[in-house]
Amino acid sequence: MSASTKKRIKLGMVGGGQGAFIGAVHRIAARIDDEYELVAGALSSDAERSKASGAELGLDPARCYGSFEEMAKAEAARPDGIEAVSIVTPNHMHFPAAKAFLEAGIHVICDKPLTSNLADAEALEKVVAASGKLFILTHNYSAYPMIRQARDMIANGDLGNLRLVQMEYVQDWLTEDLESSGQKQASWRTDPTKSGLGGCIGDIGTHAFQLGCFVSGLTPESVLADLTSFVEGRKVDDNVSVLVRFAEGAKGMLWASQVAPGNENALTLRVYGDKAGFEWQQEHPNHLWYTPLGQPKQLLTRAGAGASEIAARLTRTPGGHPEGYLEGFANIYLEAAAAIREASGGPAIDPASTVPGIKDGLSGMRFIDACIRSSNADGVWTGL
Amino acid sequence: MSASTKKRIKLGMVGGGQGAFIGAVHRIAARIDDEYELVAGALSSDAERSKASGAELGLDPARCYGSFEEMAKAEAARPDGIEAVSIVTPNHMHFPAAKAFLEAGIHVICDKPLTSNLADAEALEKVVAASGKLFILTHNYSAYPMIRQARDMIANGDLGNLRLVQMEYVQDWLTEDLESSGQKQASWRTDPTKSGLGGCIGDIGTHAFQLGCFVSGLTPESVLADLTSFVEGRKVDDNVSVLVRFAEGAKGMLWASQVAPGNENALTLRVYGDKAGFEWQQEHPNHLWYTPLGQPKQLLTRAGAGASEIAARLTRTPGGHPEGYLEGFANIYLEAAAAIREASGGPAIDPASTVPGIKDGLSGMRFIDACIRSSNADGVWTGL
Amino acid sequence: MSASTKKRIKLGMVGGGQGAFIGAVHRIAARIDDEYELVAGALSSDAERSKASGAELGLDPARCYGSFEEMAKAEAARPDGIEAVSIVTPNHMHFPAAKAFLEAGIHVICDKPLTSNLADAEALEKVVAASGKLFILTHNYSAYPMIRQARDMIANGDLGNLRLVQMEYVQDWLTEDLESSGQKQASWRTDPTKSGLGGCIGDIGTHAFQLGCFVSGLTPESVLADLTSFVEGRKVDDNVSVLVRFAEGAKGMLWASQVAPGNENALTLRVYGDKAGFEWQQEHPNHLWYTPLGQPKQLLTRAGAGASEIAARLTRTPGGHPEGYLEGFANIYLEAAAAIREASGGPAIDPASTVPGIKDGLSGMRFIDACIRSSNADGVWTGL
Amino acid sequence: MSASTKKRIKLGMVGGGQGAFIGAVHRIAARIDDEYELVAGALSSDAERSKASGAELGLDPARCYGSFEEMAKAEAARPDGIEAVSIVTPNHMHFPAAKAFLEAGIHVICDKPLTSNLADAEALEKVVAASGKLFILTHNYSAYPMIRQARDMIANGDLGNLRLVQMEYVQDWLTEDLESSGQKQASWRTDPTKSGLGGCIGDIGTHAFQLGCFVSGLTPESVLADLTSFVEGRKVDDNVSVLVRFAEGAKGMLWASQVAPGNENALTLRVYGDKAGFEWQQEHPNHLWYTPLGQPKQLLTRAGAGASEIAARLTRTPGGHPEGYLEGFANIYLEAAAAIREASGGPAIDPASTVPGIKDGLSGMRFIDACIRSSNADGVWTGL
Repeated sequence: MSASTKKRIKLGMVGGGQGAFIGAVHRIAARIDDEYELVAGALSSDAERSKASGAELGLDPARCYGSFEEMAKAEAARPDGIEAVSIVTPNHMHFPAAKAFLEAGIHVICDKPLTSNLADAEALEKVVAASGKLFILTHNYSAYPMIRQARDMIANGDLGNLRLVQMEYVQDWLTEDLESSGQKQASWRTDPTKSGLGGCIGDIGTHAFQLGCFVSGLTPESVLADLTSFVEGRKVDDNVSVLVRFAEGAKGMLWASQVAPGNENALTLRVYGDKAGFEWQQEHPNHLWYTPLGQPKQLLTRAGAGASEIAARLTRTPGGHPEGYLEGFANIYLEAAAAIREASGGPAIDPASTVPGIKDGLSGMRFIDACIRSSNADGVWTGL
Repeated sequence: MSASTKKRIKLGMVGGGQGAFIGAVHRIAARIDDEYELVAGALSSDAERSKASGAELGLDPARCYGSFEEMAKAEAARPDGIEAVSIVTPNHMHFPAAKAFLEAGIHVICDKPLTSNLADAEALEKVVAASGKLFILTHNYSAYPMIRQARDMIANGDLGNLRLVQMEYVQDWLTEDLESSGQKQASWRTDPTKSGLGGCIGDIGTHAFQLGCFVSGLTPESVLADLTSFVEGRKVDDNVSVLVRFAEGAKGMLWASQVAPGNENALTLRVYGDKAGFEWQQEHPNHLWYTPLGQPKQLLTRAGAGASEIAARLTRTPGGHPEGYLEGFANIYLEAAAAIREASGGPAIDPASTVPGIKDGLSGMRFIDACIRSSNADGVWTGL
Repeated sequence: MSASTKKRIKLGMVGGGQGAFIGAVHRIAARIDDEYELVAGALSSDAERSKASGAELGLDPARCYGSFEEMAKAEAARPDGIEAVSIVTPNHMHFPAAKAFLEAGIHVICDKPLTSNLADAEALEKVVAASGKLFILTHNYSAYPMIRQARDMIANGDLGNLRLVQMEYVQDWLTEDLESSGQKQASWRTDPTKSGLGGCIGDIGTHAFQLGCFVSGLTPESVLADLTSFVEGRKVDDNVSVLVRFAEGAKGMLWASQVAPGNENALTLRVYGDKAGFEWQQEHPNHLWYTPLGQPKQLLTRAGAGASEIAARLTRTPGGHPEGYLEGFANIYLEAAAAIREASGGPAIDPASTVPGIKDGLSGMRFIDACIRSSNADGVWTGL
Repeated sequence: MSASTKKRIKLGMVGGGQGAFIGAVHRIAARIDDEYELVAGALSSDAERSKASGAELGLDPARCYGSFEEMAKAEAARPDGIEAVSIVTPNHMHFPAAKAFLEAGIHVICDKPLTSNLADAEALEKVVAASGKLFILTHNYSAYPMIRQARDMIANGDLGNLRLVQMEYVQDWLTEDLESSGQKQASWRTDPTKSGLGGCIGDIGTHAFQLGCFVSGLTPESVLADLTSFVEGRKVDDNVSVLVRFAEGAKGMLWASQVAPGNENALTLRVYGDKAGFEWQQEHPNHLWYTPLGQPKQLLTRAGAGASEIAARLTRTPGGHPEGYLEGFANIYLEAAAAIREASGGPAIDPASTVPGIKDGLSGMRFIDACIRSSNADGVWTGL
C-alpha cells in the first residue's frame, strides 16, 4: 500500500516539436495542476526531429516515435502505455491521428478546429462513438472562470430571454503577406491543404462562435457570411463578417479578422437579454461586466466579489492576481483529467464540469462550411 | 464706425419647446461660442405652449409664433428678421419646415435624420439647390475634434488603403416597452408616422453610418441588413445588423441597438487600413487610439500630444480637460456660423471646415431605405 | 407686464483679455445656461488692450475700462451697472480687485487660489463679511455632477466611517523650463510675485485638497509636506507630496505634480470608509466607481443608472453623452446665478446648492501656507 | 550517453501544507517550465499533517518530514537529496529554516519578507555569505516581463534623469476584523509574533518598495512614514503612508493599504524622469504605458509591438494572450533554475537574469524597520 494518493495520467503528444507553438502551450497546461505526466511523443513527422524534440523534454528515447501510427500501436501494446494523447498538429492531421488513437483505445485531447473539412469531422464523430473513448477539444477560451460564470448565470436566467450575441475575434498579425516570408505559423495557417478551406474563419472565427454558443446556450440555426481575403495572393479568408440566427429567436453578429492593426487577440463576447447584459474580453479575462437593466454596471472579478462557485472551481489565486491564457488552457486539462479518471473507474466528475468535445467540434466545422457556402453565394442565409 | 467687431447671427428655432430634449441642446450649442442670438421661435405646434416656451427663453412675445409657416413669412418680412433657423422637431416635420424657411430665403440648420422618408429627402435636395441658401445637418458626432483628426489622417494616407470600417451605436433605453408608458421621447421615436419607417436605424444607425463614411472618406455602395423589433408590439426596428460594401473595396459592419442593457450611448468607430488602425468611442471622445502596424498603440488626445491643427481648430480647453457632447454639437454651430457669414459676404470659411449638409442627409435616407428593403427581402445586397 | 420671465444677470469681468486662457473659460461657463450677460470689463491692465479685447467680445466701448478700480467705481454708479464681476487675473490681483468690487456693492465670482498669500486671504474674509455681498470661488471640479453625488452619498453614510482620502492632481506641462521660453501661462504661474509663494501647490494642489475636503466633508487638521522644484532655476515648487490628517481620524495623501510625463490633468480622488470606497477621475468625470465592501464594483454614470437627484440637478444631457470641464465650470455659474438672484430678493436657492466661497478659499490658503512651512522645516506636522 | 538533456532540479518545500495558500503558488510556479521536481517536504509543523499533505502531492512518505531541521539533515545526507528548498512558511520561520538548509549546503528559495525582524535579516545575510549557496527571494512582481522591460529602458536612459517614483499596493480584504473570525491567512498575517512588527507594511508595502527600487535602479536613502491600524483591536498596521527620498535626488511616495474597499491587489508603479514616464498595474501586467515627453502615450504589450528582448525572455505566449501572476512567479523559478545549474557547474546564466536575493530582502527589512521607527516618532525622516 502506498501512502500516496497521487497518480498522474500518462500522456502522449502528437506534434508540438521544435519550432511549434501550441504544443508547448498544451504541455504547460497539462503541468499546471500536476495531473499528467508526458511520457511519449510523435512530436514531428520528421523522425529525427521527433527524437531531438523528445530529448529536450526528457522523454525516454524509446517512446519518441517517428509517426503517430507507430506511436498508437506501440503505446497501446505497452502495459504502461499512455492513457491519453494530445494532438497538436496542423488541422489536416487531426482526423487521422485522432482516429488512430481512439481505435487503439486511447483517449484523445485535440486542438481545434476539429478537422480540415466537414466530411472528416462527420467521420470522426462516428469513430468517437464507436471507440467509447473520450474526445476532448481544447476550446480553451470556454474554460476561463468568468466565462463559466457567465454561462451559468445565463442558464439561471439572470439575463432573461436572450436577444443578442455579439462575437468578435480580431488580430492584426496577417495584415501583410507574412506567409511569403516563410514564417511557420503563417505558412500552414494560410495553406488550404493544411488548415482546410477556411483561414481566419477556422483559426479564430470558430473560437468566437464556440464561445458565443457555449456561453449563451443557444442553438445556432443559420448564418449569412461575407468572407474576404484582403491580402493579395492569400489563398484563404483573412476577414469574416457573419450574421447569425439562433433557433430561440436571438440574433448575433460575428466579426473575425487577422488584418486589423492594433489588435492582438481581441476576442470579445457581448450577450444581451431582456433583463441584463454581459461583456467580456479575452485580454482581460478576470473581469466580467454585468449590467442588470436599470442598474449600474457591475464588475464581477475572478475570485472577487460577485464571483460564483462555478468560477471558484477553476481558479488558483486570489482576486486581483491575474490568471491568463495558460490557466484557462489548464482548466481544460484539469477537467479532462477528471473525465479520464472517471472513465477509468474513478470518482464521478463534478456536475459543473463542461469539457468541450466532438459536438463542439462538429458544430464548428458546420459553421465553417456554412459560412463558406454562404459567402460563395454572395451572402444567403444558410442552415447549420 | 463701431468699435465692436462682434455681430451675432440672428437665429430662430422650430420645435424645442417645453418638454423637448434636443432643442435645449441646440440652444446651448449655439451659445457656447457666442456666435448666435436666439430671437424668434415656433417652439411648439401648440400656439399657447409656443408663447410660454418663448417667454422662458426671454424671447419677444411678438416673435413667438404658433406655426413655422407663420414664422417663416413674418421673419422674412422683418428688416431685423432671422438669418438662420434651427429645426428641432420630430423627423416628419423636418421637410415642410425646412422647405418653408429655405423658400423664404433663410438658412436652415436641421436635426437629423433629414426627413422621414426618401421621397421627402429627394424633394428637399431640390429645394435646397433652388434656394441658394445653406442647409446644415447637425451630425454632431462628426464634429468631435478627434473625429476630425482621424478623418484628416486617413485622407493623408496614415492608414494606407482602407479595408475595414466597423460601426456601432448601442443603447439600452428601449429594452422594455417604454413607449406604452407615454414617455415623450420613446413615443415619437417609435411611431412610424413621426419618425419614419425606420426606428433604431434612423435614430442612431444613421449616426454610425454617417460617422463611418465621414471619417473614412469611402463611398458606400451596397448594404445587406437584418432589422428586428425585439420588443413585442413595437412598430419599428430596435436592433439593426448591417453588412456594408464600399466602392473602393473596403467592407464594414454596422450594429445599432436600443435593447442592449449596459449601453448608454456607445457609439464606436473602428477603421483599419493596410498601414494602421483607429479606434474611437463617443463616450470618451477626447481620445483617439491609433496603431501604426507593428508599432505600439498610441493615445492621441484632444489638445494633447499627437493632436493636429485640425483638432485644435475645434477645441477650447487644454488636454485632459474633457470636452464632450455639447462642445461637439457647438462645433457644428461654430462652423455653420462661419458659413453663414461667408454667404452674407463675410470672409471665406477655413478650408478645413466640413459642415455636414444635404448630401449627408440624403446619403443617410438612402441608407435607411436600402436597409429596410434589404431586410424585408430577408437579407439581399441592396445598392445605395 | 412683460411676458418674458428671463432676466439675465449683468456681469463684468476683470482680466481675461487677449492671450489669456481662463477668462474665455469663465465666459463660456457663464453663457452655457444663459443666466448672464457680459456687459463690462477691465480685461487687461493695459487700457488699449482692454478696449480691443472688449471690442472682440462685442462690449460697449464705454464699458471697457483701463483698470478694475475705475470699473468698480463707474459700474457702481450706473443705474444699469453690473450686478456681479468675474475676476480672472493672475493670483496676486485677486485680493485688490475683489475688495474694490465688494466694497462697491457688487457680487464677486473669483478664480482660485483665493489670493497670493494668507494675509490677503484673511483680510479678504473680513471684506466679504463687511460687504454683505456674495463671494464665489470657482472651484470648478467640485461642481461635476458625480462629485456632488459622491459628496451626498458620503454625507448619507454610504461609505460608513471614513478612513482614507487619497488626492492627486498630476500634469506634465512644466517638465521642462517652459517659463524661460516666455510662454505666458508658465511665466506668471512660476513667478512668486504673481502666483504667490506656492507654485504647483497653489495652482493645482489646492484643487485636489479642496476636492478631497469637499467630497469627504472631513475637517483637515494638519499636514506634513515635502515640496520640490525639480526644474533647475524654477522659483516655485513643481512637485508636492503631502500627508494629511483629518480631525475625525481619517488620513490622506496628496500628490500634485507638474513634471510627470504622460499626465495632462489627472485629478483623481479616492475615498474609503469602513463600508465602501469611491474612485473618480477628472478626465472621465461622468463616471464614479463605487464599491460597497464585499460587493462588485459599480459604475455610477451621470444621468445613468445609479445617478441620484443631486447629480441630475447639474446635468444637461442623457447618460453616455459626456459632459466635461466647461459644463462643470458652468455649474458653478449656474448655482452662483441662483444665489445672486436670491440675494436680490429672488426665490430661495435649492438646499442642494453648494457654491464654494470664502471659506474654501481661506482653507486653501491655509493649506498652501502650512505646506510651505512644513516643507521648509523638512517635514513636520503643521496645523491648519 | 543519454539522449535526454533534461534533468529536473530536485526540490523540497518547507510549509505549504493543507490549508496554506502560497505553497501551492510556489509549486505551480516551479512546474510551469518543468525545471523542478518536488521530492521532499516538511509541509507542516504538524508531522501528521505534513505526511497527509505530502501524500496528496504524491511525495514519497519517507521524504515527508515532521520538521525542517530533520529534513535538512536527512536530505543533505541522501545521495539523491534535494538541491534546493522552497520556504513558504509564515515570516517568523523564514530565518531558522533558511539557516538550516544553507548550512546543510542546500540552495534556498524563500518567500518574502525576508524575516520577521531586522536582526534575523542581518544574521541571515552572514549565513548566506558563509554558505556559498544561493539565496533567492520570491519578489514575484519584479519578474513580470513588462517590469523587466521598464527596468531595462530606465537603465538605458529612456526616461532621462529620474525624478519621481510613485508606489502603491492597495487591498481591501482586511477592511473588517477578519482575524477575529479565525480566517487562517488573516490570523497569522496580523499576529506580530508570526508576521513580525509590521503588518501591511511587511506583507505588501515591501512588495511595492522592492518594485519601485528594482525598476528605477535608484538607491533609497530615507523614509518618513505614517502607519495606522484602522481596525479596532488590530495588532499591526493596516495602512501605510510613506515619503521616500533616493540618494540620486529623486523622490517618491508609497501607499499600501489593506482597508480600501474596491481594491483587490492593486499594485501600481509610476516612474517619471525628465524625458518620459511609465505606468504599470499588476492587475493588467501585460501592459506598460510609456509616454516620452511631448509625444502620445504608448501601450507597450508583452510579446507585442514595443516589447523588447528583455521581456521576450520571460514570455511564453503571443501578445494578447494574457500571462498573469503565476507566470510572473514562474519566472522567478525559471531564473533560479538557471542560477542553480550554473552553481552546479552548468552554463553561465544569461546576463539579463536578475534574481532577487538577500540584498533585496535586507533592503526590505530595513525599509520596514525604518518606517516603523519613523512612524513611532510621529513622522521624522529616517535613514535606511
